[in-house]
Amino acid sequence: MAGSTIGTIFKVTTWGESHGKAIGAVIDGVPAGLKLTESDIQPYMDRRAPGRSLISTPRKESDTVEILSGVFEGMTTGCPISLMIRNTSQHSADYSAISEIYRPGHADYTFDRKYGFRDYRGGGRSSGRETAARVAAGAVALRILNFLGIDICSYTLSIGPVHIDKDKFDRSLISLSATCMPDPDADKEAVAYIEAMRDQTDSAGGVTETVIKGMPVGIGDPVFEKLSANLAKATMSIGGCKAVEFGDGINVSSSVGSENNDPFRMSDDKTVTKAANHSGGLLGGMSDGSDIIIRNYFKPTPSIYKTQHTVTRSGENTDINIAGRHDPVIVPRAVVVVESMCAITILDELMINMSSRLSYLSEFYGKPRCKNT
Amino acid sequence: MAGSTIGTIFKVTTWGESHGKAIGAVIDGVPAGLKLTESDIQPYMDRRAPGRSLISTPRKESDTVEILSGVFEGMTTGCPISLMIRNTSQHSADYSAISEIYRPGHADYTFDRKYGFRDYRGGGRSSGRETAARVAAGAVALRILNFLGIDICSYTLSIGPVHIDKDKFDRSLISLSATCMPDPDADKEAVAYIEAMRDQTDSAGGVTETVIKGMPVGIGDPVFEKLSANLAKATMSIGGCKAVEFGDGINVSSSVGSENNDPFRMSDDKTVTKAANHSGGLLGGMSDGSDIIIRNYFKPTPSIYKTQHTVTRSGENTDINIAGRHDPVIVPRAVVVVESMCAITILDELMINMSSRLSYLSEFYGKPRCKNT
Amino acid sequence: MAGSTIGTIFKVTTWGESHGKAIGAVIDGVPAGLKLTESDIQPYMDRRAPGRSLISTPRKESDTVEILSGVFEGMTTGCPISLMIRNTSQHSADYSAISEIYRPGHADYTFDRKYGFRDYRGGGRSSGRETAARVAAGAVALRILNFLGIDICSYTLSIGPVHIDKDKFDRSLISLSATCMPDPDADKEAVAYIEAMRDQTDSAGGVTETVIKGMPVGIGDPVFEKLSANLAKATMSIGGCKAVEFGDGINVSSSVGSENNDPFRMSDDKTVTKAANHSGGLLGGMSDGSDIIIRNYFKPTPSIYKTQHTVTRSGENTDINIAGRHDPVIVPRAVVVVESMCAITILDELMINMSSRLSYLSEFYGKPRCKNT
Amino acid sequence: MAGSTIGTIFKVTTWGESHGKAIGAVIDGVPAGLKLTESDIQPYMDRRAPGRSLISTPRKESDTVEILSGVFEGMTTGCPISLMIRNTSQHSADYSAISEIYRPGHADYTFDRKYGFRDYRGGGRSSGRETAARVAAGAVALRILNFLGIDICSYTLSIGPVHIDKDKFDRSLISLSATCMPDPDADKEAVAYIEAMRDQTDSAGGVTETVIKGMPVGIGDPVFEKLSANLAKATMSIGGCKAVEFGDGINVSSSVGSENNDPFRMSDDKTVTKAANHSGGLLGGMSDGSDIIIRNYFKPTPSIYKTQHTVTRSGENTDINIAGRHDPVIVPRAVVVVESMCAITILDELMINMSSRLSYLSEFYGKPRCKNT
Repeated sequence: MAGSTIGTIFKVTTWGESHGKAIGAVIDGVPAGLKLTESDIQPYMDRRAPGRSLISTPRKESDTVEILSGVFEGMTTGCPISLMIRNTSQHSADYSAISEIYRPGHADYTFDRKYGFRDYRGGGRSSGRETAARVAAGAVALRILNFLGIDICSYTLSIGPVHIDKDKFDRSLISLSATCMPDPDADKEAVAYIEAMRDQTDSAGGVTETVIKGMPVGIGDPVFEKLSANLAKATMSIGGCKAVEFGDGINVSSSVGSENNDPFRMSDDKTVTKAANHSGGLLGGMSDGSDIIIRNYFKPTPSIYKTQHTVTRSGENTDINIAGRHDPVIVPRAVVVVESMCAITILDELMINMSSRLSYLSEFYGKPRCKNT
Repeated sequence: MAGSTIGTIFKVTTWGESHGKAIGAVIDGVPAGLKLTESDIQPYMDRRAPGRSLISTPRKESDTVEILSGVFEGMTTGCPISLMIRNTSQHSADYSAISEIYRPGHADYTFDRKYGFRDYRGGGRSSGRETAARVAAGAVALRILNFLGIDICSYTLSIGPVHIDKDKFDRSLISLSATCMPDPDADKEAVAYIEAMRDQTDSAGGVTETVIKGMPVGIGDPVFEKLSANLAKATMSIGGCKAVEFGDGINVSSSVGSENNDPFRMSDDKTVTKAANHSGGLLGGMSDGSDIIIRNYFKPTPSIYKTQHTVTRSGENTDINIAGRHDPVIVPRAVVVVESMCAITILDELMINMSSRLSYLSEFYGKPRCKNT
Repeated sequence: MAGSTIGTIFKVTTWGESHGKAIGAVIDGVPAGLKLTESDIQPYMDRRAPGRSLISTPRKESDTVEILSGVFEGMTTGCPISLMIRNTSQHSADYSAISEIYRPGHADYTFDRKYGFRDYRGGGRSSGRETAARVAAGAVALRILNFLGIDICSYTLSIGPVHIDKDKFDRSLISLSATCMPDPDADKEAVAYIEAMRDQTDSAGGVTETVIKGMPVGIGDPVFEKLSANLAKATMSIGGCKAVEFGDGINVSSSVGSENNDPFRMSDDKTVTKAANHSGGLLGGMSDGSDIIIRNYFKPTPSIYKTQHTVTRSGENTDINIAGRHDPVIVPRAVVVVESMCAITILDELMINMSSRLSYLSEFYGKPRCKNT
Repeated sequence: MAGSTIGTIFKVTTWGESHGKAIGAVIDGVPAGLKLTESDIQPYMDRRAPGRSLISTPRKESDTVEILSGVFEGMTTGCPISLMIRNTSQHSADYSAISEIYRPGHADYTFDRKYGFRDYRGGGRSSGRETAARVAAGAVALRILNFLGIDICSYTLSIGPVHIDKDKFDRSLISLSATCMPDPDADKEAVAYIEAMRDQTDSAGGVTETVIKGMPVGIGDPVFEKLSANLAKATMSIGGCKAVEFGDGINVSSSVGSENNDPFRMSDDKTVTKAANHSGGLLGGMSDGSDIIIRNYFKPTPSIYKTQHTVTRSGENTDINIAGRHDPVIVPRAVVVVESMCAITILDELMINMSSRLSYLSEFYGKPRCKNT
């Protein structure tokens, strides 16, 4: 299989290649009764779309999403929602030169070896373009989560050596700044760094951070389906992501128990709180009611203008100069993709959790609405 | 659900609590024709079992695995293999004190909130003991992978501040040293560090590294079922793991494309190789034929003897002193669990990959053995 | 894979062969808070067990079920419930004669061709014995359904030419009569027929009927996961079942629309009812609030004492006389298996249905119990 | 969820409503290397499309299928194939009258109760129109099966009281006759019967039969994933299907073992054959190498012009006269849908079966094509 479906109840299937007719997503399991139009989804598409600033590729992709099914009179029906985004700006000619050469850092070689050949136009299925379909689906999940009081906020934490200063955190900048950094100074500095990289015909990596607020306690399942494990899978499935961490993350390995454990305390309103959040909102793989904190580490864009050593499909050493238009950093465009993948994962787990106690079942099916009356 | 099943074709289901009658695993999808006896599995159980050295808990768990089904005349039949490990050394009395108190860093609170109550004996289902069932299943997967020429090697990379020196790498030490470090000097140093932690009634974290050699190219699927994503999920589902990275991992975020891209080169025997392995053996989420490199970061054991602030089930602030026998570090025992989870994941993906080309199907079903002849 | 898991949230995995050490089931997704002991399950095991009467095989299987996990202080914890039934009465020697010969009507040939060899003792994995594990799991599902006010009643509708008369329907006889027929006269007649078959060294087939009362409306999903489709799969997966029908079943094909459509009417208490139930309680694949009616058609026991033509594993024509103890009819023992499979299917669909409307989600997660308070 | 995905490796997801913008299917897991264009799929669409004859609804649906992804230079790439069929002939005005009334025999009531409201235009998601997407996906599966030498042939066995005579069987008539009957005389008779039904403002039911030739032995899995169980589910998920049977089907219940068992015999070319095929090609749930025989029983079209009793959404008794254009029998159009569902199911099982023996794995991964060379 090509592994294009994720989720157990809230189930997202994506399709499409960079330079095919269109890309899209089918979302099965959307609960009935959500108000939804294309204009609810479009802002998320726009956040991902290139062409927003100097640092991004100058291609203009309109990325206009169309709802083909599952909505009737402005409301979700419970039936699968099919979302399509036409590809409008392909220039296949740009890519013919690479049809017989494996670009370093790309999936060209692995695709050819798995399937015998590949759609070489713009990376085909492994293009970043595939993530537009994830964002369309994520927008629907995010709307439902907002309705439930759960807020997911992803942003750029660092690009190359430039890190944000959390004291300057301004959420409104995330969707306004070129870098998706919530710190205006870091944004400027990062833009300068990226421009320097571009001048050197090179590219930059970076880190996204995601904060999820308002989670009920106990979401996720104790063993293989830990919420942490599923969030790791969902975000690691984004192209270019090479590491993921929760809470204190890699630093836990050099911490000690007395520091790393978060003490529980009763708050003034008699609710359980934690005096710290080293755990990143997850205990035993389940949400503990604190903010869930995730960081994803992205590699530098593999398409660079520098000459690189590589081989041809027919097995000859060669050099490659990748022409075309490429983002010198993928992190700013990945931000909304990370947010989307977290939303899809969390909504699915919330649904699965609804039958975790017998009393929930009996309360639900004991109600008049569900009886044959 | 409790999320106790992993895998699509090679499917592992585990069950059991720390202080119940037994724990176990059911493996469905084991190919027929593998020679298998309890003695093939037992060495892996012994690698995980406590009591091997000073730094581990003094409990003696025999962890004797019993094959209950799926093997006939010493050979797997293709039917599910049920593996059971009796719990022999429970002292439930040790745990009664914590039934009404939430231990910091543990899943006590999240379990209670999810299910309404919990099996408080020794952590119940979220005890590290659950991983014994994973190891039993992993042993079967590892045997099959070895048969196919794929080698998975996990070891302790660091404990607290002590890192191994790769120049001193000696694989034979992994299963002999108390820390599962393949470097004798680091092992000694780490033991000293752990003993110091114990003396301070504290605990330590650490890192495992896993190297997978001999992978065919193209294993894993391009979108949500990337091999990297599934390895991340599988290893992040191990209790206490807070971060995972592949290849250069978190460092890719501060690298540049010209350094991070691995150039392809033809080797003398006319095969494609890479001149570097920053990718950690994965391109576009699929194996690229280089060694797959994974690092998992584990937090310090949450059970410490120090007094900690916490709350009771009924909502009162209190302090807790955790009695009982606990490992001051979980990393050495996690090593074989990581290895097992990687093996389960990779074998499943190898099976799924078999129908990726039409020519594979036609070759398989064109053979006399599969025809009705 | 060997296909030993069924269900999406309420997930049952069975394992074990006829003549192995034990058989068992692991149930994942059991909601927490159900009172459960072995004595709640045992009566279902006894209903399936042979040796109850003349018409059944004289083997005495104790079929004592043991709960190994998932229950704490008499209550389900939400964690997987592992159920084991030791095999106590195997006489492997009985079966050695058939190791090299394919029994007509059995899975010997297909097993050998799929897996290369087989556990030939008593049918191995394809023995009717496997269904004991289904019944153990079904007992748990049935308890939960009863708690929710849903009643499932399976019985023998016919054996060979002998049909029950519904005017004489007496539910109490189902578990008392040798045939599981709820009609005392038909029971006697059927026993006589079966004895005649046995005297002729032959065997008989029959039909089970299942009536499910108390279903909420709208359970099941509209397309591939229709409740009818899943009930068909679940019951057709019982060995020997060759047909399944709902409501008027095969007769709908010769009916006309004006007869087959069930008119809706308002009842005196202002609820929607149907003036007929040709649909068997299912419209558009979802429960319509009427009784769900299912009939399963079972073939005659393939093991007969008559000499039959067959072939050897090595490809020679031969004759076979099957010795040993065999039920001349499997239907009475299949009754509780059908009931179990229906229960497992329906409970899973009830769980999945809980997130079908946005208002259900917001009601559930808006409640204080689920907030971090 | 709405249950719109079927399959484990060859995975089909459908979307769309009768009167939305379009309907479609996404097929994930199509092996790479299959030549495929729209013109390969279109003939199957045409077989399902209405308007072919007098007995079908006079609506003209063009049902033109468009491939949106997964094919490059005329060849499948291994990536998901997105297929779309625009809805061109909706007259929503026709349906406004039924928005507040539940049509007997339809899913109106169950949809409303499950989701709170429904897309009432032409049945919405539960319209027969949804099956066009199944046929588009089935066409791809059928092409692959043909490539592997497996032939699936579905046809109308009976309509109302009119049965085909197998002595007159002429396969070419299936796609030419108005009824999809392979017997010219039965076809004429059935057309007359249907016209009589229409004159009486009534509708007719019928039966399809499917014969699958060329199956390898051992396809399907022994327990819950029996091939018979999955074929039952797949075909029972077609709207209006109320019964399914294999081989002798319901008649096995009144047969005896000595008649029902198929004796094995060696054929002249030293292959195993069966002297009869009462089993319908399935033993122990796995293919036995004989023809697989399936019959599906369909109810009369629920939409009839006769006045019927029913209720309104607001709970009042009323009468309904269904206007619009409706097939007086759905069986002829269901034939290619049954064929498609069987193809989807069988192809998936063939893929799953490829890892059933260790020797298959080692042969596959031992080959040079899969090594890192």
